Amino acid sequence: MEPYAAHVSLRWSDMDAYAHINNVQFLRLLEDARVIAFRDWFDNPHGGRSLLDEGVLVSRHEIEYRRPLGFRHEPVEIRIWVSRIGGAGFDVAYIVTDPQPLRDAVGGDATIYAVAETELALYDFTASTPRRMRPSERSSLERQLGVVAPFRRRRR
Amino acid sequence: MEPYAAHVSLRWSDMDAYAHINNVQFLRLLEDARVIAFRDWFDNPHGGRSLLDEGVLVSRHEIEYRRPLGFRHEPVEIRIWVSRIGGAGFDVAYIVTDPQPLRDAVGGDATIYAVAETELALYDFTASTPRRMRPSERSSLERQLGVVAPFRRRRR
Amino acid sequence: MEPYAAHVSLRWSDMDAYAHINNVQFLRLLEDARVIAFRDWFDNPHGGRSLLDEGVLVSRHEIEYRRPLGFRHEPVEIRIWVSRIGGAGFDVAYIVTDPQPLRDAVGGDATIYAVAETELALYDFTASTPRRMRPSERSSLERQLGVVAPFRRRRR
Amino acid sequence: MEPYAAHVSLRWSDMDAYAHINNVQFLRLLEDARVIAFRDWFDNPHGGRSLLDEGVLVSRHEIEYRRPLGFRHEPVEIRIWVSRIGGAGFDVAYIVTDPQPLRDAVGGDATIYAVAETELALYDFTASTPRRMRPSERSSLERQLGVVAPFRRRRR
Repeated sequence: MEPYAAHVSLRWSDMDAYAHINNVQFLRLLEDARVIAFRDWFDNPHGGRSLLDEGVLVSRHEIEYRRPLGFRHEPVEIRIWVSRIGGAGFDVAYIVTDPQPLRDAVGGDATIYAVAETELALYDFTASTPRRMRPSERSSLERQLGVVAPFRRRRR
Repeated sequence: MEPYAAHVSLRWSDMDAYAHINNVQFLRLLEDARVIAFRDWFDNPHGGRSLLDEGVLVSRHEIEYRRPLGFRHEPVEIRIWVSRIGGAGFDVAYIVTDPQPLRDAVGGDATIYAVAETELALYDFTASTPRRMRPSERSSLERQLGVVAPFRRRRR
Repeated sequence: MEPYAAHVSLRWSDMDAYAHINNVQFLRLLEDARVIAFRDWFDNPHGGRSLLDEGVLVSRHEIEYRRPLGFRHEPVEIRIWVSRIGGAGFDVAYIVTDPQPLRDAVGGDATIYAVAETELALYDFTASTPRRMRPSERSSLERQLGVVAPFRRRRR
Repeated sequence: MEPYAAHVSLRWSDMDAYAHINNVQFLRLLEDARVIAFRDWFDNPHGGRSLLDEGVLVSRHEIEYRRPLGFRHEPVEIRIWVSRIGGAGFDVAYIVTDPQPLRDAVGGDATIYAVAETELALYDFTASTPRRMRPSERSSLERQLGVVAPFRRRRR
């Protein structure tokens, strides 16, 4: 299965004083990839509110930078999938790469700028407590389940 | 040895729509902790330029969030130390906590908001190539060498 | 003449603790509208470098907020035009509004979220000095010349 | 009367690809100057909540950039005062400059990086409506009342 592809536009201000997309801004791009993906992944029978509203908390990030990324007008493509499903949370994995037209233009393999993984905990913001996963959420996530994040290495 | 303590002020805008300090902004705070620490850690015999200018590239981040952090006027204390020294880079580990006056005020143990680790690669921006560590850099780093980052768990 | 329309995507993080797009982030959106517009407005006979690279400095901003803007997946439309041409700089005016599909959906007039104006000074980054406008730049700007920014009021 | 002086730390990320503090980030610094000043200016008899919580909305910004500002470890000093009091809002004016030790070090007049003004509207977030100024708020503001913002020019 091909993972979900979210396209996120860069901003000129994502560059830092080295004139490259700043490493912290990569996490910002991943945040928007989640927002885009979660809207599509989760059924919203009650209308309007997504998982992000209900909501989820980030409990862990891991990111490995592979190649510097400069500013350009074309968005980045962020491939995002579920890499673990637990009773009260789940992980998503990501690859930050180029969208198809840019890949075709260079006529070669996709450039991978970063690989990352985020651990999310389900949270009930009304009651301010962690919460268990609902069956409907589990089945939504299972449709996106893929491999573990393809980090080059896990250290130690 | 007590690790180096950098004090970084929060900004009102570090809060996201949940009215907590946003998870990505924690990485932003760590960036400033490195800038503050590196100025102190490295001898600057040639005057003016720090390791960050010369410079270093972030090649990996890992961060574990422990407790939500709200906006307040008191800075956070970021304890930062060297957790690995290699031939062409090094790791720094961090604990995001409260400064002493806030800890005294609650009369108890320090609250830990996050634990993190960053892998840095030495880089020659003039030649646009990775570079080897200089002996003077190694001895500066050795003075800050501590334990591995106290993550709750390394998964898989 | 219809002014140039730049479409800029919102980010979830553009919201502040009030869960609205933060007032400072509006200026960030305007920055990207300029980057998008300037690429289209200026001939680039020498290839690759736009006016923004060569470059320009912001010397003044004025912005009037009309209505709160919430986060949504649809981009905002930023209408941007030249409102003054001088010997060493120029002004651009903007209206932040909804793109056509959103306007059609509400079946009424365009909602205006903000009106703004930026004064730009031409700058030679190589020589670190202000510079005069070139004839080719002037004719590019003249093609985008429109009215003054439609602020509700200029005070005092 | 000397205006209130808020000291705001720069962040390395306030620099943009030109390696100067980005023009939009100046507005971000002003936001924090307001947060710092408002905590001091307003009596908080009910404990804990400041005017910013209750709250206020930005309805207009005007900013004039005077000199480029580079990153440095010393904070900027933002002089902030009330420049207009109305029935349902007020204006604050600002000068972004160096704190006293830096001014002494150069042995001359204060460098002015920017002059700005913000129009604020009082807002009742519970009822989601504008609201009138309370007498206690008016007297707090009157103690900070100063001249209009010293812009070089108001155009047109």
